[in-house]
Amino acid sequence: MQARVMYDFAAEPGNNELTVNEGEIITITNPNVGGGWLEGKNSKGEQGLVPTDYVEILPNDGKDPFSCGNSVADQAFLDSLSASTAQANSSSANSNNQVGGGSDPWSAWNAPRSGNWDSSDAWGTRTDGAGAQRNSSANNWDTGFGHPQAYQGPVLTPSPWNHGCFPPRSSSLGFMNFIWQAEAGEAGSRASSAVYASTFLMNRFPGFAKPGMEQYLLAKQLAKPKEKIPIIVGDYGPMWVYPTSTFDCVVADPRKGSKMYGLKSYIEYQLTPTNTNRSVNHRYKHFDWLYERLLVKFGSAIPIPSLPDKQVTGRFEEEFIKMRMERLQAWMTRMCRHPVVSESEVFQQFLNFRDEKAGEWKTGKRKAEKDELVGVMIFSTMEPEAPDLDLIEIEQKCDAVGKFTKAMDDGVKELLTVGQEHWKRCTGPLPKEYQKIGKALQSLAAVFSSSGYQGETDLNNAITEAGKTYEEIASLVAEQPKKDLHFLMECNHEYKGFLGCFPDIIGAHKGAIEKVKESDKLVATSKITPQDKQTMVKRVGTMSYALQAEMNHFHSNRIYDYNSVIRLYLEQQVQFYETIAEKLRQALGRFPVM
Amino acid sequence: MQARVMYDFAAEPGNNELTVNEGEIITITNPNVGGGWLEGKNSKGEQGLVPTDYVEILPNDGKDPFSCGNSVADQAFLDSLSASTAQANSSSANSNNQVGGGSDPWSAWNAPRSGNWDSSDAWGTRTDGAGAQRNSSANNWDTGFGHPQAYQGPVLTPSPWNHGCFPPRSSSLGFMNFIWQAEAGEAGSRASSAVYASTFLMNRFPGFAKPGMEQYLLAKQLAKPKEKIPIIVGDYGPMWVYPTSTFDCVVADPRKGSKMYGLKSYIEYQLTPTNTNRSVNHRYKHFDWLYERLLVKFGSAIPIPSLPDKQVTGRFEEEFIKMRMERLQAWMTRMCRHPVVSESEVFQQFLNFRDEKAGEWKTGKRKAEKDELVGVMIFSTMEPEAPDLDLIEIEQKCDAVGKFTKAMDDGVKELLTVGQEHWKRCTGPLPKEYQKIGKALQSLAAVFSSSGYQGETDLNNAITEAGKTYEEIASLVAEQPKKDLHFLMECNHEYKGFLGCFPDIIGAHKGAIEKVKESDKLVATSKITPQDKQTMVKRVGTMSYALQAEMNHFHSNRIYDYNSVIRLYLEQQVQFYETIAEKLRQALGRFPVM
Repeated sequence: MQARVMYDFAAEPGNNELTVNEGEIITITNPNVGGGWLEGKNSKGEQGLVPTDYVEILPNDGKDPFSCGNSVADQAFLDSLSASTAQANSSSANSNNQVGGGSDPWSAWNAPRSGNWDSSDAWGTRTDGAGAQRNSSANNWDTGFGHPQAYQGPVLTPSPWNHGCFPPRSSSLGFMNFIWQAEAGEAGSRASSAVYASTFLMNRFPGFAKPGMEQYLLAKQLAKPKEKIPIIVGDYGPMWVYPTSTFDCVVADPRKGSKMYGLKSYIEYQLTPTNTNRSVNHRYKHFDWLYERLLVKFGSAIPIPSLPDKQVTGRFEEEFIKMRMERLQAWMTRMCRHPVVSESEVFQQFLNFRDEKAGEWKTGKRKAEKDELVGVMIFSTMEPEAPDLDLIEIEQKCDAVGKFTKAMDDGVKELLTVGQEHWKRCTGPLPKEYQKIGKALQSLAAVFSSSGYQGETDLNNAITEAGKTYEEIASLVAEQPKKDLHFLMECNHEYKGFLGCFPDIIGAHKGAIEKVKESDKLVATSKITPQDKQTMVKRVGTMSYALQAEMNHFHSNRIYDYNSVIRLYLEQQVQFYETIAEKLRQALGRFPVM
Repeated sequence: MQARVMYDFAAEPGNNELTVNEGEIITITNPNVGGGWLEGKNSKGEQGLVPTDYVEILPNDGKDPFSCGNSVADQAFLDSLSASTAQANSSSANSNNQVGGGSDPWSAWNAPRSGNWDSSDAWGTRTDGAGAQRNSSANNWDTGFGHPQAYQGPVLTPSPWNHGCFPPRSSSLGFMNFIWQAEAGEAGSRASSAVYASTFLMNRFPGFAKPGMEQYLLAKQLAKPKEKIPIIVGDYGPMWVYPTSTFDCVVADPRKGSKMYGLKSYIEYQLTPTNTNRSVNHRYKHFDWLYERLLVKFGSAIPIPSLPDKQVTGRFEEEFIKMRMERLQAWMTRMCRHPVVSESEVFQQFLNFRDEKAGEWKTGKRKAEKDELVGVMIFSTMEPEAPDLDLIEIEQKCDAVGKFTKAMDDGVKELLTVGQEHWKRCTGPLPKEYQKIGKALQSLAAVFSSSGYQGETDLNNAITEAGKTYEEIASLVAEQPKKDLHFLMECNHEYKGFLGCFPDIIGAHKGAIEKVKESDKLVATSKITPQDKQTMVKRVGTMSYALQAEMNHFHSNRIYDYNSVIRLYLEQQVQFYETIAEKLRQALGRFPVM
């Protein structure tokens, strides 16, 4: 069996991988070694592992290549997606390729800005999604380890939306993931059309290819699901119901494991929910699976931030593992804090399955993948204990959320950009300069000491010490961002991830509103009854309550997080400047008084 | 009368000057309007003032141009200099042009470094000479006004040694100054030859063209001058005798004056010696005259730092005038502090002449210009009350001074370079970044305020205030260098000026030592007697005592100055960091505790 390489892949040294280049034909020696890898041999006879998604299997006649792992049925499904797209908006369908042209999902809602295309505006992808936060009661954030390259993100991190960077190399989930990625690529072009974005948004969830917005809005009778997500109206308006006891989950102890008799190695993390205190182990790909299930299930109602980037090269570098764990921790804490997500079966099952070998994990996994209460159908589980809303109010609420999240997205990005700049300066040129000042003072003291003149020892010692003090200040300056700016950046990074989910959420709502507006025509042509329309308004009202509940959750978290992180930042900065002042005062005290 | 323009000259707007370009022929309408200016007319008929030194008068036959103000006799003198140069070292004579090839006067003493030619190593010129110091009891340093471009010096200030920058545009002293400049240009190439540098150094003082090193060392009997410069031996070795009462001189009140019925304007400074408290007024050109007289008279024994640069363009800009006054003040204070210089007739006359109109100033000026106790003859006024030194000791002392001053020159330049870099960062990118942080925080607070969520007013106000605090920090950062780095830079700048004088001083000493060493041959051929040689050793011994006395003066000043300026720097830095810490603490205090 032969395959054509679709994307360049650079082997990780010592990891039994095979470097292949786009267009190269390789012979598949083992089509499915598992975990999204196949074993292949190149023309030079070199053998090794290659990601399944990076190649397309060549049929025996050498024509009509289809993607590896992509069955004929799957292909038909993809075709149908394209057809739907074409139906909805022919212009976006025409650009329906993997590399999206305009990457700002906000552009649809914010036309005046859409001309200012900016590569850093590509968000909501897995590369810049999950951030971190430090306000968890049980995490290891306070260790404050560093990662000088961490804030290349907003500008430099490759994103699937950007030319040449697709597909992300993190795929190891086979078909499902492939579909997600294909859809993600499509979303890039989709973003230019609000209509498409709203109407066909749900198509991006493979498990939801059939039950679309129409099904939720127009179903005569929604099946009464066992699952119920209550919404109540509290002092601040609609809100989720918070569980009486909350928990967090400690992500710790990253360990290198191996599979296939040592052929493939990976990192496994220990997860310990604070309520059970019983640990389970998960690989990154399990997190990725969970992320995807949460996105599929709750993504129309709740922002599910992406996981930290799954870096392929340097996967086992200590710094990277620490950084990823820190961000996985933040992601887990964020999920645990959410009253709907944390109580969901899929999430609970992820944290609390008992025995992987006995198949409990796999059973749960399969069950979750069959869940039909996904996409907009999640709203069918919600029964707000509140009066019905009229469409004008629904639209106003939706617009307000769109406006706020867009504005906050801008604000967060502004802070990230300036923070990144500041990080670079504080860890690069600035300490170098203090070091140079320190060295220059010490050099001068050394010269002075060679004068042979009596009675200047005190001065020269003092100048030397002042020089050393500036060298210490250099270190303080270089280390400081890890103590304060790091957390400010991670918090904003995380919020950037959240905010990147809103265009889809708002898109779903706008789509639903649009459908209701269009329904007058359907009533007129007797395709639906006025009662059907009433039902639609009620259901869009449910969506609006969900959006408001989620926004109230979002705001209360935001207020808490920003208060905490800016306080921390200022506290650390005060300490920083005081430490420097104190060191300089000591240096000053060594100078003789003449 | 016609003249060819030798160097580009850009007219100062509103100052009756004429812009001319190199190679242009102008008609001289008034060859001597005074003050180093002539009046000319260009081919377009435009008329205006041009510096005399910038043109060469064309003879009637159009050939053999000679420099304006340079008589046939002067030319002969210049020729004789070239001849002497040729005699001493033919290679340096060959490169005896105005633009020196190697500009590091130290290279002769420090062969291993001479390959590292560096344009910033050109010093001891009028462009980077005088600095400033703040330890004067009666000056206006504490006002701490700024001059962001002041520290372009070490790298960017044009220097006569550099190609294309000669002559400096500051010349307004006519012939004497022209000679000085020509000699300065010559010194550039001279520096490559220690022998030339030492033996013929004194030729650069026009008033000392005849009495050279031989005359001082070999005169049977030195004329007993009325002027006496005592050297005694104190606890720290040889020293000048310090006057019982010292004085400073306040340079203040720069006023625009005009001459030639308003044709030319200039700045006049009020000088008030603290001992007499009677003011005199002097223009920059008078300072320049004084500088030159002091250099001619004391330059072989005492470093006379150059005056601050006389900038032509923007001469009347307030900033520049302030800066120049500050540096003139520093220069005057430095001269007042020197026991030999401050007591000299020429210096006293400069500060204390009574009536310009009655001609007292001009009389004194003429008298000073006729002084024959200049160049190495200054040593004939010195009678050290100390035992004779042997030649080995003399040579060791001289080498030690050479080594120290070279090392300190390097150290000072290192500090100036890093200080300049730091200045730029602190006044440029760093405050901009703090401003951006401040703005980003305020933007975010503005977005948050638009959320419509209740109960976050306190947080948003606190974030806004934190943002404003960072804007205040931006200002603090940008203003700080004027409060501390400025003085550190000026002090080092001034010492760079001092240190730039040492190659000549050491050159004179090495030349004298060389002469004594060569004298054995003269004794052997009976050209001089052994007694003559003894006299030579004694006289070189006197030079050595003078050098040691000067070094002790230098060191005690250096210790005082650096102690003061680094203390000041650290004090200001402590205050700076404490102020920031306090501001941040206040900002922190505004955040609600959750």
